Amino acid sequence: MDKVKIIEIKKSVFEDNDRAANQLRKDLKQRGVYLLNLMSAPGSGKTTTLIQTINLLKDKIRIAVMEADIDSDVDAVKIKEATGVPSIQLHTGGMCHLDAEMTGQGLDNVALDDADLVILENVGNLVCPAEFDTGAVRNAMILSVPEGHDKPLKYPLMFTVCDVVVINKTDVMPYFDFDLDKCAEYIHMRNPNARIFPICAKTGEGVDAFANWLLNEVQQWKNSAC
Amino acid sequence: MDKVKIIEIKKSVFEDNDRAANQLRKDLKQRGVYLLNLMSAPGSGKTTTLIQTINLLKDKIRIAVMEADIDSDVDAVKIKEATGVPSIQLHTGGMCHLDAEMTGQGLDNVALDDADLVILENVGNLVCPAEFDTGAVRNAMILSVPEGHDKPLKYPLMFTVCDVVVINKTDVMPYFDFDLDKCAEYIHMRNPNARIFPICAKTGEGVDAFANWLLNEVQQWKNSAC
Repeated sequence: MDKVKIIEIKKSVFEDNDRAANQLRKDLKQRGVYLLNLMSAPGSGKTTTLIQTINLLKDKIRIAVMEADIDSDVDAVKIKEATGVPSIQLHTGGMCHLDAEMTGQGLDNVALDDADLVILENVGNLVCPAEFDTGAVRNAMILSVPEGHDKPLKYPLMFTVCDVVVINKTDVMPYFDFDLDKCAEYIHMRNPNARIFPICAKTGEGVDAFANWLLNEVQQWKNSAC
Repeated sequence: MDKVKIIEIKKSVFEDNDRAANQLRKDLKQRGVYLLNLMSAPGSGKTTTLIQTINLLKDKIRIAVMEADIDSDVDAVKIKEATGVPSIQLHTGGMCHLDAEMTGQGLDNVALDDADLVILENVGNLVCPAEFDTGAVRNAMILSVPEGHDKPLKYPLMFTVCDVVVINKTDVMPYFDFDLDKCAEYIHMRNPNARIFPICAKTGEGVDAFANWLLNEVQQWKNSAC
C-alpha cells in the first residue's frame, strides 16, 4: 500500500474561531486556492464520492485532499491510490471536529502553489463539525439513502450551514423507505438556497453534476482573486 | 399524534463525570433499575431496533425510554405509539452527547418505581457520546450494514466502550460490500469481550437474541440488588 503523510493535529489554542476562519479564507483567496469542507455521518460514502469527483476533475484543475480521521489512514491511502492526487491524513486524536486553526495546520502540509482546489474530508459526524467554520469557501455534506430522509429534522445545524447536499447511494433507494421529495423539502426548511445533487458514488451516476458545480465554483473563485 | 413529554437538558455543571456516573449507577442499583445506553451513527436504525426489542420484552419487564435528540421529538412519539411504553424526549439543544448529570436530569422525569429497564437512546454520533460515562450499566451500539465493516477502525473509542454491538440492516447485505467476519474481527480488536448480534430491525430477524441477552442482564442486575 502507498504511504501517505500523516499529520497529528493539535488542539486549537485560538479562541476566536470565526476570526481565524475569515483570515484563512482571505489567505486562500489571495493564493487562488479554493477550500471545500465535506462533512457527513460515518459511512455515507464521502471517500468514494471524492474519488469519483476527483477523477472527473483532475485533468481540468489541480486538486489536493486532506482526510481527517480520528485514528486510521485508510481514506488518504485510498484516495491517493484511486486518483493519484496528493492526499494527506489529518489525525484528530479523538477530537470530533476540525476548526479553522486545525484546518490551517493541515494546509501547512499541502503544496498550495500546486493546488487550485483543496478538499477537506471532515470527521464523520453530523453534530460537532457543523459548529465550526473551517475557513472553507463552501460547506458540502453527504446524506446517504440508508440514513433516512428525516435527517434534516434531527440535525438542523448541519443542514443550515451546508451550501450543498449530496444524496448518495441512490441505487439502493428501492430497499429503503427514502422519500427524495420530502428530503428536499426538509433540507430547504433548514437552508432555502441549498443545492441538492442525488448521486450514486458506486456507479458514478449523477456525480458529473456535482463535479461541474464544483469546477464552476473553483473557476469563479480564482477569477475573482485576480 | 400522541404528545410526549419533552425535557430541555441543561449543560452539565458537574466537573467529575466519572464520579457522577458511578453515583448514578449506585442509585439505580439500589432502586433495582437497569439503565442501557444505546449509541450509534445517525440513521443506523436505533429507534426501529428499540421498538422491536421492547415489543418482545414489555410483557416480561417494565420498560421506559428516554430519547435524546438535538431538536425534534419524532423518536419519542414513534416509540410511544408503536410500543405503548412510557417514552420521553430529551432535547440537548445542540449538544453532541449526554453525560451522567444530563442523564440524571432525564431520569428525574421517568417514573423509576414503575421501571425495571430504562433505555437511553443517545445522540446519533460515533465520536462524542463514547467519551462520557452516562451512568448506564452497559453501553450498546448499533452499526448498520450500509455504514461499512471498517467503522471499528475509524471510531476506535466507540467500539472500545461498548459491551454489545448490534449489526443492523442485514437484509441489505447483498447490496453492500459488508464483510461480517472482518467486522467481528475489527470489533474484537477494540473490545475482545464485545458481544455481536446481527439483526434486521425491519423484519425482526435476530432481535430475539439481543432481547434475551438484555432480559437476562436486567434480571441479574435486579437479583444482585436485593
